Amino acid sequence: MAKICMVVSEGTFDKAYMPLIMANTAAASGDEVHIFYSFFGTKLVTKKANPKLPGMFRLFTGMFQKKMKAVGIGNYMETFKQAQELGVNFYACSTTMDLMGVKKEDLLPNVKVLGAAAFLKLAVESEATLFIG
Amino acid sequence: MAKICMVVSEGTFDKAYMPLIMANTAAASGDEVHIFYSFFGTKLVTKKANPKLPGMFRLFTGMFQKKMKAVGIGNYMETFKQAQELGVNFYACSTTMDLMGVKKEDLLPNVKVLGAAAFLKLAVESEATLFIG
Amino acid sequence: MAKICMVVSEGTFDKAYMPLIMANTAAASGDEVHIFYSFFGTKLVTKKANPKLPGMFRLFTGMFQKKMKAVGIGNYMETFKQAQELGVNFYACSTTMDLMGVKKEDLLPNVKVLGAAAFLKLAVESEATLFIG
Repeated sequence: MAKICMVVSEGTFDKAYMPLIMANTAAASGDEVHIFYSFFGTKLVTKKANPKLPGMFRLFTGMFQKKMKAVGIGNYMETFKQAQELGVNFYACSTTMDLMGVKKEDLLPNVKVLGAAAFLKLAVESEATLFIG
Repeated sequence: MAKICMVVSEGTFDKAYMPLIMANTAAASGDEVHIFYSFFGTKLVTKKANPKLPGMFRLFTGMFQKKMKAVGIGNYMETFKQAQELGVNFYACSTTMDLMGVKKEDLLPNVKVLGAAAFLKLAVESEATLFIG
Repeated sequence: MAKICMVVSEGTFDKAYMPLIMANTAAASGDEVHIFYSFFGTKLVTKKANPKLPGMFRLFTGMFQKKMKAVGIGNYMETFKQAQELGVNFYACSTTMDLMGVKKEDLLPNVKVLGAAAFLKLAVESEATLFIG
């Protein structure tokens, strides 16, 4: 069992799914996983989360989603809920919530508000820290 | 006290502020912090540094800056100087300085020039390494 | 000797070269290096790999390439082969190969197919894990 910590600071489709897929894989084999959402990533832990592919790939988001279904990966909210059921811990960065106009009541259930100091403590204690982008 | 190492390879507003905010938080509680600037990140440790939000968000940089002031975060140069006063160590990647056309005299005071081998040594010795993007 | 692990999820020029330059530096001094390619990064370990600078910088890729030659860094395929000769280990993410339409026969020689669970094991065992972007 290891402690794994991730940071997500961008809100695109790829940066939304990668931490969830890795978190679910890790949590399913007993690892303790913490994901911290900052800057543009913060919207991914709100009720309105609906990530799109970046830049000119944006229009292909639906096609990607279909391909993911074919390999057994559900839509974003399903994958997020699966992570929570597996015990993955989700945090929104308190400093950037203000900047991004995200309020506590906008957050998805069981997403905790965390400051930079507490996050860094998690990172230092973890066996692997992945700053997803 | 922990040793924390970060890499910044992009030059946008979000990638400029995140390492400084985390570095200042860590350094204020006694951690040793090292930040290595590479590729597009290199310009963030030059005297002309003036990061903007990425892509179509670019025009909102001033608005963001105001919001940051409201939560107690100064402008880029102020936040950078604060980090230096707290003892945060800044490095420009020697390989990419040549590529980006950045000369030693363009660097902000006390920014050291460092090669990839020396950076990797820092990363291996650190309790947490964050590749910001 | 340390164990260093990297992830590449974007396919641009900067995200293509940074892991190779660091990997070659590390491997040359005896470190064990593993690089895992996921999402848009997957195309970087295919025979058609030909990374360009991101966004509006795209047109300057050739100019950058020339500057890199001047500081002793070869083209992408040369740098990749050098890494393999130095013993760097390359992996394509099995989940995203399907998504990106990359087949096993499209991969460059000696690139292994790896799942998320096996990658996370590598990350946890490494002294430094760099998620390049």
